[in-house]
Amino acid sequence: MTRVQDRSLRIAVLGAGVVGTEVIRSLVTQEGDLSARVGSGLELIGVAVRDTSAPRDSVIDPALLTSDAGSLVDRADLVVELMGGLEPARTLILRAFAAGASVVTANKALVAAHGPELYEAAEAAGADLYFEAAVAGAIPVVRALRESLAGDEISRVLGIVNGTTNYILDEMTTAGLAFDVALGQAQELGYAEADPTADVEGHDAAAKAAIIASLAFHTRIPLSAVACEGISAVTKEDVAAAAESGHVIKLLAIVENTAGGVQARVHPALVPTGHPLAGVHGAFNAVFVESESAGELMFYGRGAGGRPTASAVLGDVVAAARHRVHGGLAPAESAYAGLAAAPSADALTRLQIRLYVADRPGVLAQVASVVAKHGVSIEAVRQSDTAQASQRDAAELIIITHRARQADLDATVADLAELDSVTEVASVLRVIGI
Amino acid sequence: MTRVQDRSLRIAVLGAGVVGTEVIRSLVTQEGDLSARVGSGLELIGVAVRDTSAPRDSVIDPALLTSDAGSLVDRADLVVELMGGLEPARTLILRAFAAGASVVTANKALVAAHGPELYEAAEAAGADLYFEAAVAGAIPVVRALRESLAGDEISRVLGIVNGTTNYILDEMTTAGLAFDVALGQAQELGYAEADPTADVEGHDAAAKAAIIASLAFHTRIPLSAVACEGISAVTKEDVAAAAESGHVIKLLAIVENTAGGVQARVHPALVPTGHPLAGVHGAFNAVFVESESAGELMFYGRGAGGRPTASAVLGDVVAAARHRVHGGLAPAESAYAGLAAAPSADALTRLQIRLYVADRPGVLAQVASVVAKHGVSIEAVRQSDTAQASQRDAAELIIITHRARQADLDATVADLAELDSVTEVASVLRVIGI
Repeated sequence: MTRVQDRSLRIAVLGAGVVGTEVIRSLVTQEGDLSARVGSGLELIGVAVRDTSAPRDSVIDPALLTSDAGSLVDRADLVVELMGGLEPARTLILRAFAAGASVVTANKALVAAHGPELYEAAEAAGADLYFEAAVAGAIPVVRALRESLAGDEISRVLGIVNGTTNYILDEMTTAGLAFDVALGQAQELGYAEADPTADVEGHDAAAKAAIIASLAFHTRIPLSAVACEGISAVTKEDVAAAAESGHVIKLLAIVENTAGGVQARVHPALVPTGHPLAGVHGAFNAVFVESESAGELMFYGRGAGGRPTASAVLGDVVAAARHRVHGGLAPAESAYAGLAAAPSADALTRLQIRLYVADRPGVLAQVASVVAKHGVSIEAVRQSDTAQASQRDAAELIIITHRARQADLDATVADLAELDSVTEVASVLRVIGI
Repeated sequence: MTRVQDRSLRIAVLGAGVVGTEVIRSLVTQEGDLSARVGSGLELIGVAVRDTSAPRDSVIDPALLTSDAGSLVDRADLVVELMGGLEPARTLILRAFAAGASVVTANKALVAAHGPELYEAAEAAGADLYFEAAVAGAIPVVRALRESLAGDEISRVLGIVNGTTNYILDEMTTAGLAFDVALGQAQELGYAEADPTADVEGHDAAAKAAIIASLAFHTRIPLSAVACEGISAVTKEDVAAAAESGHVIKLLAIVENTAGGVQARVHPALVPTGHPLAGVHGAFNAVFVESESAGELMFYGRGAGGRPTASAVLGDVVAAARHRVHGGLAPAESAYAGLAAAPSADALTRLQIRLYVADRPGVLAQVASVVAKHGVSIEAVRQSDTAQASQRDAAELIIITHRARQADLDATVADLAELDSVTEVASVLRVIGI
C-alpha cells in the first residue's frame, strides 16, 4: 500500500443521504480528534451526489459537491461509498482500487452480491476494503469476526439483523398485535418503509447472512445460497403458541458450519425466552456467535439509522486511514477458500407444527405415526382449545419435534397435510435450542 | 516496526498455566490456519516457566520449556505474556519492547497499574501492545473501544466484568439464596476462589474499570482513582427490595465522562429488569457502551476461563503478527491526554435507601424533610411489612431518590441515620436508569 506521510489524507465521500451527511458532519466537526487517532490530517476533498443543486445540510460545503464521482475517486486516498445499490457503486469502488485507494462502504447489497470480486480487487491493489456498517449498523460484528476471532473456530452465528422485523415481532409478542397492525405501526414510526418487502420478506437479512457466512467461515457464500423466508405469514396464534412453550418468535439469520458444508438461511424461529437473543426488543439488532474456544458471544446495538451507521463507517475510516499512514492491511478474505454452501435440505433443525385436527379419538396416534414414519421424533405435543379451533369445529394440536433433517421435516409436514383427520396445517416454524 | 518477511515469526509464550496451555494448544494444532491468516509461518520458540520439571499438558513440547524468560524474550518477534502479577511480567514486557518485539498480554493487574508506561514503551519501540483478554475474557471490548468506536464519542460504559460476583448475585436473585450460601456454592463450582476477596470486594472489577476508562476516554485513569465497593454487604432483603421496584442487583464497573472529568467506580447497583444488563446471568460478563453516534451497544460473553481467554489472546496474536508481516501498528493510546479523573463525590447517581423506622405517624414526614434539606428529591417511597421489620418492631421504609450528587446523597444518609425515628439504615445501593 502507498503510504501517505507528507500531506493530509484525501477522503472522497460518495453519496450525501442520511448516513453520508452524518459521516461528513463527523469528519468536519471532529477533525482534530480523528486526525490525532489517525496520525495525519484528513482532508475531505469532495462529495459525489446525483444532483448538486438539491438542498443539503449546512455541514456540507456546497463547493465540495460534484456529480462527477469518477474523477473524484481518482484523486482520493480513501473512498467512502454511501450511495447504496449495485451500480454505479461497484464500478466506482473498482475504480478506486485500480487507482490504489482504500474503500469503506456501508453497502450490504453490493458486498453480498460482489464481495469476492471486491476483496480480490482490494488485495490486488494492496488496498483495504472495510464494510462494518454493511452488516448490523453500529454493532462491530464484522471486526469481531475478521479480527477478534481470528484465532478461534466459529461453529454457528444467529443474528437478529433486521430492526424492522424485530420491531414488528416484538410488538406482536409484547402487545399481542396482529402482523398487519404491527407493520402499520412500524410504518407510522418510520421503522418500516412504504414498501416493506425487502425487510418483511427477509431479503435484507439474507444479504447480511451471506456476508456473515463468508466472514465466519472464510468462504464465499453467494446470496443465492441463502434460503430465505420472511415473517409475513407469522400470526398472533403462532406467537401465542410459542409463548405457551416458553419461546418468542424472532427473524433469524442463521449461518452454521455443518459436516455437509456451510448452511446459511433466514427464517422466523422460536427462541427460548432464556436465550440472550429473546431479550432483544424493538428495532435493536444482535448477533450471537458460538465458537469453539470463546464459547458464546453476543453483540447488541442499533442496526440502522444515520448516526449509528455513521459511527461504524467512521471506525472503518480511522482504521483504513491508519493503514495509509502507518502501513498495514486489513485481513484479506480471499486468502481462504474451502467450505462450500450446503443444500438447505440437509440442515438440522427442530419444528413447531401447529395443526387443526378433527376432534375425535385416534387422531393423535395417526399424526404420531406419520411423524415417526419419517424418522422424526416428537419432543412435545399439546392440544389447546382456542377460540380459533372451536370456530373451525376442530382441535388445535401443537407438535415440537426433536432435531431432524429439513428434508425429512418437510416430508413429514407434507404427509400430515394429506391426512383426512388434519383440517389444516396452520403454521410450521423452526425452533432454536439454548 | 521491523517487518518479518523472509522467515517464520518467532513467538515466545511466558507462562504455561491454564490460559498459556490453551494458547499453546491452538498455536500447535491450528498452525496452518493461523499462518494463513497472518500471511507468514509462526514458530513457537519457547515457553518460559518457573519450574521446567513440573508436569505439563502433552501439547507442550518439553524441549521448548525454559526458566530463562529474559533470554527467550530477546529472541522473539512476539511475546505472549500469561504469567500474571506485576513482576517479573512488567520487566519482561519492557525488555521485549526494548528488543523491538510486540507484546500480547492478558494481565489486567499489570495493564491497570502500569498501562501508561507500557503504552509509551511500545510506542517508542514502534511495537504493538495488545491486551484484549485483560478486560473481559473472550469479549472483544478492547478492540471495540480502541478501533470500532474510534470515530465516535463514548459517554458511559457499564460493565459486568466479574463472573464470580455475577454468579453470586444471580443465584441470590433467582434462587433467593443468602450471600454466604451463594458464595459457598460458587466456590464448590470453581467460580470463586478459596480466598474470594479480589472478586467479592470488587478489586478485580476495579482493575478492569481503570483499563476501560483509559480506553474509552483516551486518558490515564490510575487504579487508585477508581472508587470501589464490593458485594459482601448485599443481603437477601436488598435483593427482594430491588425486585419489588423492578430491579436486579448487579456489580457494575461504571466509567463516565462528566463535566468534572472521568468518573470510574465499581459498586453494586440496581439495574431495571428491562435493561439488557439485567439479563446477564450466571458467570457471564457483559459491557454496555453508551456513545454519541452509535447509541447503545452491548458486548456479551464469557469473561474468564482458559479457552475463552485463549481465544482473545489468539485474536491479538494474529493482529500483532499481521503487523510484523504487513506493517502497521495498533492504535496508540499515548497519543491522547486530557481528561482527568473526577472526584467520586461529584458523581451523579440515584439511591435506594432501605431504612427500619419507628412505626408511628409523622416518621415519613421527618424522613422526607431530611432528604429535602440536602436538595435531594424522592422518586418513590414505599413501606413493607417484612418479617425482618416486625422482628425489630419497626417498619421498613424503602426510598428511591432522583439523581443527585454522591456527596449530597452521602450527607442525606448520614443525617437519616441520626434521626431518632430511624432504627437502622439497613442498606444504601445505587440505582441505574434505563
